[in-house]
Amino acid sequence: MSRIVTLLTDFGDEDGFVGAMRGVILSRAPDVQLVDLAHHVPRGDVAKAARVLRRAAVHFPAGTVHCSVVDPGVGTERAAVAVEAGRQYFVAPDNGLLGEVLDALGGAQAAHLLRAPVSRRATVSSTFHGRDVFAPGVAALAAGVSIAELGPPAGNLQRLARAAGGQVVEVDRFGNLITDLPIPQGEVELVIAGHRLRGPVSAYGAVGVGALVLVRGSEGTLEVAVRDGSAADRLGVGVGATVACAALPIGSQSAK
Amino acid sequence: MSRIVTLLTDFGDEDGFVGAMRGVILSRAPDVQLVDLAHHVPRGDVAKAARVLRRAAVHFPAGTVHCSVVDPGVGTERAAVAVEAGRQYFVAPDNGLLGEVLDALGGAQAAHLLRAPVSRRATVSSTFHGRDVFAPGVAALAAGVSIAELGPPAGNLQRLARAAGGQVVEVDRFGNLITDLPIPQGEVELVIAGHRLRGPVSAYGAVGVGALVLVRGSEGTLEVAVRDGSAADRLGVGVGATVACAALPIGSQSAK
Amino acid sequence: MSRIVTLLTDFGDEDGFVGAMRGVILSRAPDVQLVDLAHHVPRGDVAKAARVLRRAAVHFPAGTVHCSVVDPGVGTERAAVAVEAGRQYFVAPDNGLLGEVLDALGGAQAAHLLRAPVSRRATVSSTFHGRDVFAPGVAALAAGVSIAELGPPAGNLQRLARAAGGQVVEVDRFGNLITDLPIPQGEVELVIAGHRLRGPVSAYGAVGVGALVLVRGSEGTLEVAVRDGSAADRLGVGVGATVACAALPIGSQSAK
Repeated sequence: MSRIVTLLTDFGDEDGFVGAMRGVILSRAPDVQLVDLAHHVPRGDVAKAARVLRRAAVHFPAGTVHCSVVDPGVGTERAAVAVEAGRQYFVAPDNGLLGEVLDALGGAQAAHLLRAPVSRRATVSSTFHGRDVFAPGVAALAAGVSIAELGPPAGNLQRLARAAGGQVVEVDRFGNLITDLPIPQGEVELVIAGHRLRGPVSAYGAVGVGALVLVRGSEGTLEVAVRDGSAADRLGVGVGATVACAALPIGSQSAK
Repeated sequence: MSRIVTLLTDFGDEDGFVGAMRGVILSRAPDVQLVDLAHHVPRGDVAKAARVLRRAAVHFPAGTVHCSVVDPGVGTERAAVAVEAGRQYFVAPDNGLLGEVLDALGGAQAAHLLRAPVSRRATVSSTFHGRDVFAPGVAALAAGVSIAELGPPAGNLQRLARAAGGQVVEVDRFGNLITDLPIPQGEVELVIAGHRLRGPVSAYGAVGVGALVLVRGSEGTLEVAVRDGSAADRLGVGVGATVACAALPIGSQSAK
Repeated sequence: MSRIVTLLTDFGDEDGFVGAMRGVILSRAPDVQLVDLAHHVPRGDVAKAARVLRRAAVHFPAGTVHCSVVDPGVGTERAAVAVEAGRQYFVAPDNGLLGEVLDALGGAQAAHLLRAPVSRRATVSSTFHGRDVFAPGVAALAAGVSIAELGPPAGNLQRLARAAGGQVVEVDRFGNLITDLPIPQGEVELVIAGHRLRGPVSAYGAVGVGALVLVRGSEGTLEVAVRDGSAADRLGVGVGATVACAALPIGSQSAK
């Protein structure tokens, strides 16, 4: 059973940047199994990447090494870190990208600065650390190097500011608006962009094609969708939009 | 030699939904080899997904497990099924997605309902069966569970309505118009959107750049293309457009 | 340790064309490890594909087989070739796609025509050689067939015309303009589209958000970027745009 290494970037699929990283990893740790989390994260969107990493990484087995590079500060003073949490390993720039998954996995967390390893290349570039810093670090972990050997202990990791509750926190490919409001026990009314939605229901298909619907999201929070359409386009809102939610009085609840 | 598991979805590459499925599969069947068929199928386009699945799956070796999730009815009453055909396994929503590949592979077909397996999660979501129902079912098959153990026998599977012959049935990334007309023995004239095309020829490059061309498609049917361009854009037509085809009288055939 | 096979195409991720190739390879060489270089190369852009292949392939270990199919001339008289260079193998149409990586790897190069192998299919299509010619050739190499057994020696390979120095040679997903000017020792002034840029600096983040910046590219040449934006959009230029570069007189250099 080979070691699993996941890749998460905003590098897309047209330039071969991820391909170069794959080559570096496989040339140093040829037995790993490379697995993609996502590569079309919007450019430089660290908050989105943090959510994607949590969404996927929590399902992987112990020993997995996750390499996450959404890194608008590449080449600046921001640190690179390697972290152990939940018996998995995470290598990333220290820019908040790891915040969501570390919150989800909890437990003991050992963070170490990732020193740029001695490379086969004469120099480490300052514009492509995915290839020159993160991939070699990941390969070292996959080949059995301990996290403490990669560099000195890191202090507190950077965290993204967490918005107050009652917001849209993500828009997915389908235009679904994912909120940070936990799924309630009973029926509620949610207000978003001047629309009032009752729910939640369990399936996008519970309403007619094109209708707005308040659904139980797959990660425990309320989600606003349009059946076979885009709620983001319909409502003209995105991340940061305010949502308000109130329990319905018993008498006013619809029969479902 | 590890078991091959393919993935086909309309989940794209920005949200980590496929990444979550990969994690679920690998945490339960760590030795499988994950292979992608496509993840940018147009949202909810079951007919397209059915064609993509047939196109790719027929080339895979015996024992492969194909996980296909284009599932606009997720969470509704539509069934989830696991099917054996052509010594391969298919796991998908019962919405017609499997129709094309089952037609192509023929032979004995054992279909079983896929029950939501006991999950590590407290609940099975109703909006992400790719993660909570299909991936665990696939992992079970890959780990050696028999198809009959996954659930009770299924009745007739859903089929998409098949259009009458003489249509464009698919548009590919290049804007090529794939028809359902079999490649003829001799020369023909095809009429589409008011244009008359003689052919077929064997290569897109048989005509000048920008010219319309009738070619022998790679799956046995006629295809309308524009060299280094998009026939769909040029003609302004798509899936469902009518095509008519007539053999040319001997005297009128061009010398080629 | 299984043989690595990389895939590079302009086939995208919606039609299953790459999926079909993967199936052909795995059905003939089930133990290979499939790795993607890129699949969203702009349609038919052989020069871009040549750069992507070099960018990624140079990092892979000895024995890797690279399958590269950006092939606007499919079905015409252009040859298909298999080449050994730098202890790696390359299978591609003979249209210039291999030029950059062969220049980079140097050394002994044995090129052979790739004959269409005897297929399980009755016929070899003329529109999908990725599936019918290149994938079987790659699988044969991965299974241990020698390059000389694939076909007779090939003569000189096709080369793309190389532009004179002082140009933008690539635009990446981020809109960065990659030039062919080597990174200089000292400070220079670069002129592009009427703008004068001093540099180079080491990081995109060395300037304010939205500012133009001249950086040291990750492959040894100068690169023009906009921090958190697109230099291609800002300047309205692309591949082929002229860049001129002059060393600054000592007195005029800025302190950095």
